[in-house]
Amino acid sequence: MAKRKVVVTRQLIDEAQELLDGRSDLEIVQWQSEKPCERSWLIDNAKGASGILLMLTDKCDEELVSTAGDQLKVIASFSVGTDHVERDALKKRNIRLGYTPKCLTDAVADLTIMLILMAQRRGGEAMGKVLAGEWPQMPWHPLLMTGPQISKSTVGFLGFGRIGQATLKRLLPFGISRVIYLTSKPGQPVKDDHYGLTKQTEIPIEPAKNWEQLASESDILIVGCALTPSTKHLVNADFFARMKKLAVIINVARGPIIDTNALVDALDKEQIFGAGLDVIENEPNIQADHPILKQPRCVLVPHIGSATIATREQMATESVKNLLAGLSGEAMVNEVEL
Amino acid sequence: MAKRKVVVTRQLIDEAQELLDGRSDLEIVQWQSEKPCERSWLIDNAKGASGILLMLTDKCDEELVSTAGDQLKVIASFSVGTDHVERDALKKRNIRLGYTPKCLTDAVADLTIMLILMAQRRGGEAMGKVLAGEWPQMPWHPLLMTGPQISKSTVGFLGFGRIGQATLKRLLPFGISRVIYLTSKPGQPVKDDHYGLTKQTEIPIEPAKNWEQLASESDILIVGCALTPSTKHLVNADFFARMKKLAVIINVARGPIIDTNALVDALDKEQIFGAGLDVIENEPNIQADHPILKQPRCVLVPHIGSATIATREQMATESVKNLLAGLSGEAMVNEVEL
Repeated sequence: MAKRKVVVTRQLIDEAQELLDGRSDLEIVQWQSEKPCERSWLIDNAKGASGILLMLTDKCDEELVSTAGDQLKVIASFSVGTDHVERDALKKRNIRLGYTPKCLTDAVADLTIMLILMAQRRGGEAMGKVLAGEWPQMPWHPLLMTGPQISKSTVGFLGFGRIGQATLKRLLPFGISRVIYLTSKPGQPVKDDHYGLTKQTEIPIEPAKNWEQLASESDILIVGCALTPSTKHLVNADFFARMKKLAVIINVARGPIIDTNALVDALDKEQIFGAGLDVIENEPNIQADHPILKQPRCVLVPHIGSATIATREQMATESVKNLLAGLSGEAMVNEVEL
Repeated sequence: MAKRKVVVTRQLIDEAQELLDGRSDLEIVQWQSEKPCERSWLIDNAKGASGILLMLTDKCDEELVSTAGDQLKVIASFSVGTDHVERDALKKRNIRLGYTPKCLTDAVADLTIMLILMAQRRGGEAMGKVLAGEWPQMPWHPLLMTGPQISKSTVGFLGFGRIGQATLKRLLPFGISRVIYLTSKPGQPVKDDHYGLTKQTEIPIEPAKNWEQLASESDILIVGCALTPSTKHLVNADFFARMKKLAVIINVARGPIIDTNALVDALDKEQIFGAGLDVIENEPNIQADHPILKQPRCVLVPHIGSATIATREQMATESVKNLLAGLSGEAMVNEVEL
């Protein structure tokens, strides 16, 4: 019997690559460059493939799956989101779709804490002053470079899923006072309490009635919801106008949930204290003259939420496991219901 | 009876200033500029003072106290350290010394967490790339901008006092595996367990035998000890040579505990992954061409450990309380045993 072919659009990390290479029953066709896989290469090589392991940067559409042919059984995506996959193209052919949604919770929650602290403690501004050689000329005075502190804060979550809850778990020993959260069902208790926090902790953790309450009562506001038509630009000028002057806003979800122009304006007017963003509208096309980069109280990092070695290794390994499970008809680590 | 005179080398923050201004029985002489108090002003005005409230930037020495005169009862320092005070000059005159050592624990522990995360997640480097307009040209690949993750780490503390323990309390929900600490008594359990952590937590928290063990086993190394002749340059080339390639080092204590040249060299040679510094040798005289500023994996902020609004307000208020207690012979909030 001829070996089944699998196409992989990346070189993988140690354990994952070994898992793949150990399968001598497969013909493995793998993109070799450090750069993203070229579309033409993927289309050419997909022909006759039984499985494809691909990245967020590789579009998986009708063209790709029809070119591959009827033997295609599985798409294993090395990603949390699956926006790059046309689900209908897979569903009508009974092709299974694997993804890696869970392994990045810790990495993103960690980064959320970093961004909260950088926004409050003026991390970007502080580093910038040192780098510019301004430290020798900064005369000490009691309020020099001060910012708000986490202790005694009300923390607001816009979206309160696994990552938000993992962030809350980390925030508790910082001495926060209260938590409010807004989900797609305002006023209702969150459905999945992944760490049993709402029952165990000694501070109130309650659903917000509406976005107005979330905006006006939060000292730290964490955007962690999905991007949908109803969350796009949910954080806009009206929202910022209700926020506290010493509040910070963090976005570790999707850029377009915050109206960037409104954020720049809110920082200009000192309606809020600062911002920490891992994502932004129109990323990665943020040029050096983008107005957000002129805001000393805004920290922007290039979508590195899941960028830890441990997480990426785990994502790679789970992607390979999903690929192999798809070929053999076994259970995947995480599969999208199409 | 003439009013007793107190000299204050700063304008204070709301509550503290009100507490002072409310004392109509005192003649209050207060430096009015935003810049640090001039030495000549302090010496001139100290004459006849019963109490002096001063800052870290004001040297309190034989000249100052002898100029003030025999009626001087109290020095209230708005600071955690008292290196700027000549203790003998006070002791031989029975002048009491107040300071504010405790109120900044939360602020410094928070900043320590920020620096750990920035060192691991390449916060400075990530921001720098975005600010330079490099984001649009960063092709995604699985290990792009990755760094180590807190979970499963061994955390090492060089010095394990209140701030170190408050930092540990915050680190526990990040999923660390193990803690080792080195104090002035290697191998012995820490004397003060401020939060009961060594008994309650589910991971091992143990004294290190020596600095070699601390260096070689820590994934995150936090410098939080006092600066003494035996800790000066304790973290040197030999120390870095034993550290793990993926380890990060954090200094929130005093600059000279780390040999800066050795740190630059260790980063150059990739002996460690990164560094996060709130303090550095010869601060604040760090010019823009200082070699540490050329290290993308080193984050340096300008000694902002206690720089939160809440902490500085509390420090100001406690300083005034210490001053007043010194005048009336009552118990201070915190007094140095001379």
